[in-house]
Amino acid sequence: MEPAIILVRPQLGMNIGMVARAMANFGLSDLRLVAPRDGWPNPDAGPPAAGADHVLDAARLFPSVDAALADCALTFATAFRPRDLVKPVVAPRAAAAEIRASGAKAGILFGPERSGLLTDDIVAVQTLVTIPADPAFASLNLAQAVLVLAYEWFLAGEPAVPSGPERVPAPHGELCGLIDQLNEALAARGYFFPPHRTRATQRTLAGILSAARFTSDEVRTLRGVIKALQRAPSG
Amino acid sequence: MEPAIILVRPQLGMNIGMVARAMANFGLSDLRLVAPRDGWPNPDAGPPAAGADHVLDAARLFPSVDAALADCALTFATAFRPRDLVKPVVAPRAAAAEIRASGAKAGILFGPERSGLLTDDIVAVQTLVTIPADPAFASLNLAQAVLVLAYEWFLAGEPAVPSGPERVPAPHGELCGLIDQLNEALAARGYFFPPHRTRATQRTLAGILSAARFTSDEVRTLRGVIKALQRAPSG
Repeated sequence: MEPAIILVRPQLGMNIGMVARAMANFGLSDLRLVAPRDGWPNPDAGPPAAGADHVLDAARLFPSVDAALADCALTFATAFRPRDLVKPVVAPRAAAAEIRASGAKAGILFGPERSGLLTDDIVAVQTLVTIPADPAFASLNLAQAVLVLAYEWFLAGEPAVPSGPERVPAPHGELCGLIDQLNEALAARGYFFPPHRTRATQRTLAGILSAARFTSDEVRTLRGVIKALQRAPSG
Repeated sequence: MEPAIILVRPQLGMNIGMVARAMANFGLSDLRLVAPRDGWPNPDAGPPAAGADHVLDAARLFPSVDAALADCALTFATAFRPRDLVKPVVAPRAAAAEIRASGAKAGILFGPERSGLLTDDIVAVQTLVTIPADPAFASLNLAQAVLVLAYEWFLAGEPAVPSGPERVPAPHGELCGLIDQLNEALAARGYFFPPHRTRATQRTLAGILSAARFTSDEVRTLRGVIKALQRAPSG
């Protein structure tokens, strides 16, 4: 079940729009707003949502943090732990794994742009989430913080990483054909000098060509290239 | 070594500022700009950087993608793979792990806000990075895309043990030199025929040479090979 993204007293409509876009990028749509400074709906949110209108349109307004979290069995707040509060602190990846594994409804609180969450906002949540960052510059933009959580949630449900087109190296025989052709062409042009270094130089070339792991198509192209280079200039 | 974040033809100063902030959050500072639409410096970048002025102040301007990548041994582009291009595609986590493990300088290309990177921007990069996202809404904001890569790089941490003898690819500038030399040699021999297919054929060759991840030594050897093949037969 997808977690609710809960913005607590967000200030800028622009940021709410960027949050909606980040959520939509990773398949989230349950956006909840607690006392947004400029009211709701807010026309400033539209353009930066970049088409994530379904998220903005479905956003729900709540009078308090506790009301926004009411149906959530797992509760998180993105915050540094206040010194006087004893709470487990996890990284986004661990929070995402827990949400995926439980299957229960989760809610994640994000504080206002400048000040972050107050101790009273988080006193009743179960777990704090801290995004690892450079301690010298640790304050993330609101939408960036949402993005990290949404991204980790998405990845946690996607065991298969999209891998590129398979690059299957050419059969060894084709590679040898390329090497032989090159050696012959170079020999005809006096490349191997002095003669007693010929075998060592050929080994170097074979090493280069094998390390490249050319595909069959590539070997064919390169053989054409060698042939073309041997031609007399056409100009 | 920290990767360079390379914004190709970025449109909005605001987004460049947000990129700077996201970089600073995760300890990155090497920002490079290729032909930003509104010039550089851009006062719109300041406020959204939220204090990451050291990143903006150190940003460097480049006339082309290849110039921006010139010193990078590992080259990535955040893009979906064009149908006609054969390139390995990895997720951000795998890219981050590779950058950390290699210890070499890496450069990561990010395209303009609306259109993304062109095929010609990416034809000579080694690897594409695709951020896993909801296929129905897969377009991330520029700063959000940078954030995901920076976040994964930060989390990947320093490698515990340096891994084996490294095969470090040549800096991108050396690869471009090899590609240029081959194109010129082939053009002089009428290889590109019919003429309207020239660019497509050059793309294929650049794709083959970048996929091979040749080292600097290998590039040097291959340039000598091309030169030798162009000589008249000595026999």
